[in-house]
Amino acid sequence: MCNACLIDTIKSSMLSRRSLFTGAAAVTAASMASGLVSARPALAQASGKVVDLTHTYDSDFPTFDGKPGIHYDVDKDFAADGYHLFKLTIFEHTGTHIDTPLHFSEGGTSVDALPVENLVCPLCIIDISAKAADDANATVEAEDIEAWISANGEIPAGACVAMNSGWGAKAPGASWRNTPDGTMAFPGFGKSATDLLMETGAASIGVDTMSLDPGNSADFAVHYSWLPSGRFGIEGLANLNQLPASGATVFIGAPKHRGGTGGPARVMAMV
Amino acid sequence: MCNACLIDTIKSSMLSRRSLFTGAAAVTAASMASGLVSARPALAQASGKVVDLTHTYDSDFPTFDGKPGIHYDVDKDFAADGYHLFKLTIFEHTGTHIDTPLHFSEGGTSVDALPVENLVCPLCIIDISAKAADDANATVEAEDIEAWISANGEIPAGACVAMNSGWGAKAPGASWRNTPDGTMAFPGFGKSATDLLMETGAASIGVDTMSLDPGNSADFAVHYSWLPSGRFGIEGLANLNQLPASGATVFIGAPKHRGGTGGPARVMAMV
Repeated sequence: MCNACLIDTIKSSMLSRRSLFTGAAAVTAASMASGLVSARPALAQASGKVVDLTHTYDSDFPTFDGKPGIHYDVDKDFAADGYHLFKLTIFEHTGTHIDTPLHFSEGGTSVDALPVENLVCPLCIIDISAKAADDANATVEAEDIEAWISANGEIPAGACVAMNSGWGAKAPGASWRNTPDGTMAFPGFGKSATDLLMETGAASIGVDTMSLDPGNSADFAVHYSWLPSGRFGIEGLANLNQLPASGATVFIGAPKHRGGTGGPARVMAMV
Repeated sequence: MCNACLIDTIKSSMLSRRSLFTGAAAVTAASMASGLVSARPALAQASGKVVDLTHTYDSDFPTFDGKPGIHYDVDKDFAADGYHLFKLTIFEHTGTHIDTPLHFSEGGTSVDALPVENLVCPLCIIDISAKAADDANATVEAEDIEAWISANGEIPAGACVAMNSGWGAKAPGASWRNTPDGTMAFPGFGKSATDLLMETGAASIGVDTMSLDPGNSADFAVHYSWLPSGRFGIEGLANLNQLPASGATVFIGAPKHRGGTGGPARVMAMV
């Protein structure tokens, strides 16, 4: 297909995406009125294969600021008390976790208020592992989204669009965060991609690295535009290479503490 | 059906359940070898309706020992730091949460090690709301399980068997935990039921109250038998009355902190 043809196809596809999104928004409004039920069909087809997209984490799991993200205190011990229980101190943005609109905006949606229809949704995977192998700070750009649409069709309403950079396999090693010389470096989304995604039905983005923006970002342009738009993100996804580019359904097990800015989540996908 | 006939039906059903479970165990072993993928078909059919089975929780949500289950400290504030982030102190067994084998046994399975095939699984709902309306400490007993099997067929391998006592609608009010005079009282599983369930493929049980055992339990007989058997539980489920007795698939978004005895979970069901 010539470039001009491709652009026309994408433009007309966007128009239909907008129409689709408007329709989906009406459904969403009805679902939210009930407060607990998603009316949008999810899982129209499923073979039953489940892939865990969540890293196990502990106080050694790499974090953005370098400080331990979780601390354990024994609250009850089996020998002394008859059962085990930990008191946990958790910095919300640790391990495989959610970034809500509230994380990067005043008054944005908190983690307990994310609509359920956006937590069980289609998963679109953008593979940039080839360019990330050459550039640790590689980014998903608009042309990567366009190429995905060209190959797989429209991005469905409520979808999660995830970057597979190959970084998932590096966690929890030091190379998940840093280059060998200790400089923070990892792939992320570029703003051209998330700006384009705002024209589609995508409700969330996901990354297999520790931040939506790449490791060398100076301005956190994606955090400061995507999240304040009312959409959310997932950082630290695992095992994206086990899934197809299109066709999986993701279950985003966001925590549900009132008013939270995000937090460790259990994320699994079904194909 | 006469009682003797019913017992024979259940016994022969159990033989087939055991065979099924043995087969499922082999599949489980293979899946666990890969570490991340469930080979057991889940979601053979799904209409796409999603029901959130998770309560929103905060420091006012009722807890077993009466102390706040979560505490929030502001770690980063948008006005001062450019983004919001909380440091949370969480007692693991708060809100809608997982009880692992480790919670009530030395060396039992921790929350990060629960097999993925038991986290996306069939949901069987035992409705005891009629007797619970008359007795706040009503229990699911063996005959309730038998009645469910008689009406719905075998309990599938890896299933979660959940009690719907009607208590889900009481949370987070005080009546979720106590009678009006302040005595702790709520329905739970009786050991006759969980002993019977150990003969089936059930991998987990769930309750819409704050404990697997009823509020007046003196010996925590279910905690001390079901959990040490290597099976797990979910406490504090919401909205079970939105689902059929059989046919839903539940996604149990267990947290994945290494070595945890359980913790707040996002639980949703699909029908």
